Amino acid sequence: MREEADLGERQGRHFRFRNGTMDFNAGWVLGYSQLGGLAPGEVFECLNAIRDGDPGSWVRSFAAMAERQEAAARQDPPKLAANRYLAAAVAARAAWHLVDPASQQARDLLNQLERCFQAAMVQSGSKLAPIELPTAAGLLPGYATAPIDQPCTDPAIWYVVIGGGDTFREDLYFFGGGRAVAEGYQVLLVDLPGQGGTPYRGLHFGEATIMALRELLVRLRNNWPQARIVLTGYSGGGYFTLKALDDPHTASAARVDALVASTPVTDIAKLLTRGMPAVLTQRPHSALARLMTRIAGRISPVTEAALTKYRWQFGTDWIGDIIGLAGEAGVVDAANLDLPVLAIVGESEPPEAARQASELFADLAPRQPASRLLRFQKWTGADAHCQINNLRLTQDSIMAWLADLPSAPEPREGEPNLTPSPSSLA
Amino acid sequence: MREEADLGERQGRHFRFRNGTMDFNAGWVLGYSQLGGLAPGEVFECLNAIRDGDPGSWVRSFAAMAERQEAAARQDPPKLAANRYLAAAVAARAAWHLVDPASQQARDLLNQLERCFQAAMVQSGSKLAPIELPTAAGLLPGYATAPIDQPCTDPAIWYVVIGGGDTFREDLYFFGGGRAVAEGYQVLLVDLPGQGGTPYRGLHFGEATIMALRELLVRLRNNWPQARIVLTGYSGGGYFTLKALDDPHTASAARVDALVASTPVTDIAKLLTRGMPAVLTQRPHSALARLMTRIAGRISPVTEAALTKYRWQFGTDWIGDIIGLAGEAGVVDAANLDLPVLAIVGESEPPEAARQASELFADLAPRQPASRLLRFQKWTGADAHCQINNLRLTQDSIMAWLADLPSAPEPREGEPNLTPSPSSLA
Repeated sequence: MREEADLGERQGRHFRFRNGTMDFNAGWVLGYSQLGGLAPGEVFECLNAIRDGDPGSWVRSFAAMAERQEAAARQDPPKLAANRYLAAAVAARAAWHLVDPASQQARDLLNQLERCFQAAMVQSGSKLAPIELPTAAGLLPGYATAPIDQPCTDPAIWYVVIGGGDTFREDLYFFGGGRAVAEGYQVLLVDLPGQGGTPYRGLHFGEATIMALRELLVRLRNNWPQARIVLTGYSGGGYFTLKALDDPHTASAARVDALVASTPVTDIAKLLTRGMPAVLTQRPHSALARLMTRIAGRISPVTEAALTKYRWQFGTDWIGDIIGLAGEAGVVDAANLDLPVLAIVGESEPPEAARQASELFADLAPRQPASRLLRFQKWTGADAHCQINNLRLTQDSIMAWLADLPSAPEPREGEPNLTPSPSSLA
Repeated sequence: MREEADLGERQGRHFRFRNGTMDFNAGWVLGYSQLGGLAPGEVFECLNAIRDGDPGSWVRSFAAMAERQEAAARQDPPKLAANRYLAAAVAARAAWHLVDPASQQARDLLNQLERCFQAAMVQSGSKLAPIELPTAAGLLPGYATAPIDQPCTDPAIWYVVIGGGDTFREDLYFFGGGRAVAEGYQVLLVDLPGQGGTPYRGLHFGEATIMALRELLVRLRNNWPQARIVLTGYSGGGYFTLKALDDPHTASAARVDALVASTPVTDIAKLLTRGMPAVLTQRPHSALARLMTRIAGRISPVTEAALTKYRWQFGTDWIGDIIGLAGEAGVVDAANLDLPVLAIVGESEPPEAARQASELFADLAPRQPASRLLRFQKWTGADAHCQINNLRLTQDSIMAWLADLPSAPEPREGEPNLTPSPSSLA
């Protein structure tokens, strides 16, 4: 099998496979092992059974691991069951990287992901519990440590995690959610329209994604008037969060205190156009053109599996449509943003991502001097998209930034600062 | 370069290299990423720069990473510095897998390992502090959460970790020491004669290794009469711990409450003879035979580097001597052991290791029914020697076993049971 580049330019090293997309996914699953769930030995037990470039063997390998982990967890005492259920959830979620969403197996894996993740939270005594959040677009699945739909005058600090085009709400636990719980934050993880399993509910990426986030942020603020809110966004979430706050009405109603974005994206259409292989974006979109592309062998089975999932998430049958749909809500008006931002960029991400992040930072820093542009070099292992190969360093960096953030000009009485208690190394 | 088997039969999967010893070491370093220090992305940053089978490139790659991590840690705020120093320590220690102990670089790396590990403990507020323990053999380097050489009537539970032929006291942090601190135990990690950097002090493996452990255990008990003592041993430590306690005087003076061994070894000479390649154990030990072995290409540069380290640890210039020296203290008299034992065996370990563990368990279980034989199957990722590819599962399992351990027949007043507080998933 020939080498095939990744779907985007997303990482700078090699883990296991010559197929770039598969190798990126392998590094992603391995990255989670830093924070719980599957251990390196379990990840490689799966990777060793996968044929390079064969999505079916990927799905079978991780699905079998999920079965074994869940069966073992059911027999385990609580001290073992908590992480074993989390391992089952990670394995089921890993299988989802390349499964066909239209299949019954995909639905079964999603159920298993949710069931096992929730069992892990229960067994570990976590305050994170599943919630369904009503929005104008429909009910959105999430996890939270406290209800956001009831008034509360507690001076808490909320840590909200928003993912991108490839995340489930359970992924957001690894993208800072679990760490924030450990540090004492109130935590909200949510799948916006198009994310996680929401396409099964008829919800897709587009303007609804932004509108739903705006709605949730305003509701959180209205119900928790004394709280501080830290909003974090990864991958597409780096666009959704910025776009949600570039609306002056939302910004003043939600009063978000700090934003962390990896990477902050102001023009998602341009980013996608530059990041995706030309064959996927060229027109015309005729059925014949699609067939020819396929026959010419320019799309491998792995790429095809990945694109099938994206089409499903965008509610379209042609991948070329997604750039238009992703950019439906328009370019971010950075002049409307006025809060401290931690802009995170990995050295192995596309130049266009780094460019947009730098541009935003240059615009924002003069009026929000606590803002920082954090560039992870290759040797740090945090250079890949979303820092998936060193999530801990990223989270250490975010916590350090939050701890240093100056208080608001007129801090409210009894309000804690953003410094949570330090976590143990162990 | 042709494939070369591992020095022993130690694992059942493939991480990165065709050279078996190098691949085992790669999986070992990667396994630590579960528990802190280098992230998967940082480990693969190093592995990607190593030429398969070339020990020099291994040492250069990890030594450079140690430099970068330590330099970064010096600039970091405390929230970042703690784990960055630990990453530097792991990288320096990883380089040591294949460095020549006689070189200045080896001494520099050892200093860096100790300096960075200790900085990590300080930055994270850990109670683990370096100690020097006097014994008849000489001063032994260790870490402890409280002094063991001063009388204390505190009803603490001590968790003592003993490594094997390839461990430094800092490794013992990853082999349960760090976890035990987090769970509230008092913790003692120590390099016995032959381990870590003790050969630089003129200390080598042999009967002195066993005698020193006996001496330390009795002293710990004498100074902490109200404490409970959990003794854990990994690799060669599975022999040292059993052999230390098969002496009736030591057993009654030290009163160890529970023993965890991965794997429990009763006859180390037999285990080594069966586990090592025949070429390394055959006689005669003439200089000509050694030269011929080398010339015949049956020992690769990686194997040669590993054997050079073992020779240095045993204080001998011929590797064939080590079996005699390792077995100097003799076979364990299992009939003299009378305490609950958790015997841990990985499915990918040599049959002789599993045989000795099973035999010990069969002997002990009737008089110590809380004893357990825990066999890790391949899919668990904990199937390798010392469970290096899934240390967390092993530690979860040990904590679960300790929590279930029945109290001693006549528990002392005010004594805590062996159940520590549960740790968070995050």
